Amino acid sequence: MSPDPATLVADRLAIADLVHAYAQGVDRRDPEAVAQLFTEDGTFVAFATPGATTPTSRSQGRAEITRAIGMARHYRQTTHTIGNHLAEVRGDRASGETRCVAYHVLGEEGAETLLVWHIRYLDTFARQPEGWRFHERVLRVDLVSDQPLRAG
Amino acid sequence: MSPDPATLVADRLAIADLVHAYAQGVDRRDPEAVAQLFTEDGTFVAFATPGATTPTSRSQGRAEITRAIGMARHYRQTTHTIGNHLAEVRGDRASGETRCVAYHVLGEEGAETLLVWHIRYLDTFARQPEGWRFHERVLRVDLVSDQPLRAG
Amino acid sequence: MSPDPATLVADRLAIADLVHAYAQGVDRRDPEAVAQLFTEDGTFVAFATPGATTPTSRSQGRAEITRAIGMARHYRQTTHTIGNHLAEVRGDRASGETRCVAYHVLGEEGAETLLVWHIRYLDTFARQPEGWRFHERVLRVDLVSDQPLRAG
Repeated sequence: MSPDPATLVADRLAIADLVHAYAQGVDRRDPEAVAQLFTEDGTFVAFATPGATTPTSRSQGRAEITRAIGMARHYRQTTHTIGNHLAEVRGDRASGETRCVAYHVLGEEGAETLLVWHIRYLDTFARQPEGWRFHERVLRVDLVSDQPLRAG
Repeated sequence: MSPDPATLVADRLAIADLVHAYAQGVDRRDPEAVAQLFTEDGTFVAFATPGATTPTSRSQGRAEITRAIGMARHYRQTTHTIGNHLAEVRGDRASGETRCVAYHVLGEEGAETLLVWHIRYLDTFARQPEGWRFHERVLRVDLVSDQPLRAG
Repeated sequence: MSPDPATLVADRLAIADLVHAYAQGVDRRDPEAVAQLFTEDGTFVAFATPGATTPTSRSQGRAEITRAIGMARHYRQTTHTIGNHLAEVRGDRASGETRCVAYHVLGEEGAETLLVWHIRYLDTFARQPEGWRFHERVLRVDLVSDQPLRAG
């Protein structure tokens, strides 16, 4: 039984909103808000090195996810820019892939470096009474580049 | 009274289209078309310096907005790339936040600089008989970077 | 006769998905999958130089498109990041414009260059029994920049 198109489209929008809210929450340095986007038992797995076969970190549950996302505070600033996003809904579950270019500022004022991560998020989502949430988010850094923030 | 999901989704798409049409219009150097995306009495406020507490410029009404957007002509070229976009609809009003990476080319041919603005647009939208329009667009530059356009 | 809003929104989502699947397929180096996103007689035209008036390449049909997309294998890696996307649906046809920042890695390991193409895709789409497909995709490189992948 296929869902009607209106429901499918509303689900897809809610899932895209979730993915965008994650990026917004990280850049706002609000790791608690980000952790609320996961299910109670949600998992966040990061592969921070291109081609890595073992994860850099694995966090389960909102307390651990809050801690992991809070690590972004080590950067002076971040801007996570979401690009292409695809998801497939199957009833109360969904899976998706999202591209993000994440810019991180680090270093002394006036001599900052811009560290750029080209990320793919591989997600599973679960429909909860309060809306769609991440059940598992796998962050894969595909490519890393860096440059002085200001050349001039 | 909640709107039905189909209406909500159609409103969200129309608002996202408006945000994307703005970027397209700026890059096409068509400030008159951009001004038409605002309500008659619409406002455009720009904070062009990261962390600024007073606006760099404030334009109200389509004539002033046309003039403000027309300033992009000072660059040889721009490419505004829209990333994450979130909006919340309440009847005939909506508000939203959008991330954009705006690339600006300046300088002499063969020695151009690429000036990159990481922008957050904080918007309110109004439903008009002809569709959704910006009621107020606040542009905040979060981060500025620059580099030579061509290193090679 | 206007389509009902739910159908229009479902069409727009399917078309956006197609545009995002193209980017995903190119980055996965799966040119056969990308070619399947076109109609049988689909056309892919690339203008790889900013301001070019004659195309760099023109490919018609899935075999030629597979070959053209396969050229991306000459780069060590690519990340195509989709930004603003607009489309207009008229029955079983649609047209649209999409911005993409495409990052290409080339050069020797440890001394890679990051070549960045700011792309506009100008597309026509056709509704097929199996879903929306590209009828013609015109790739226009608006701006090229490059930099060392790692400055540090």
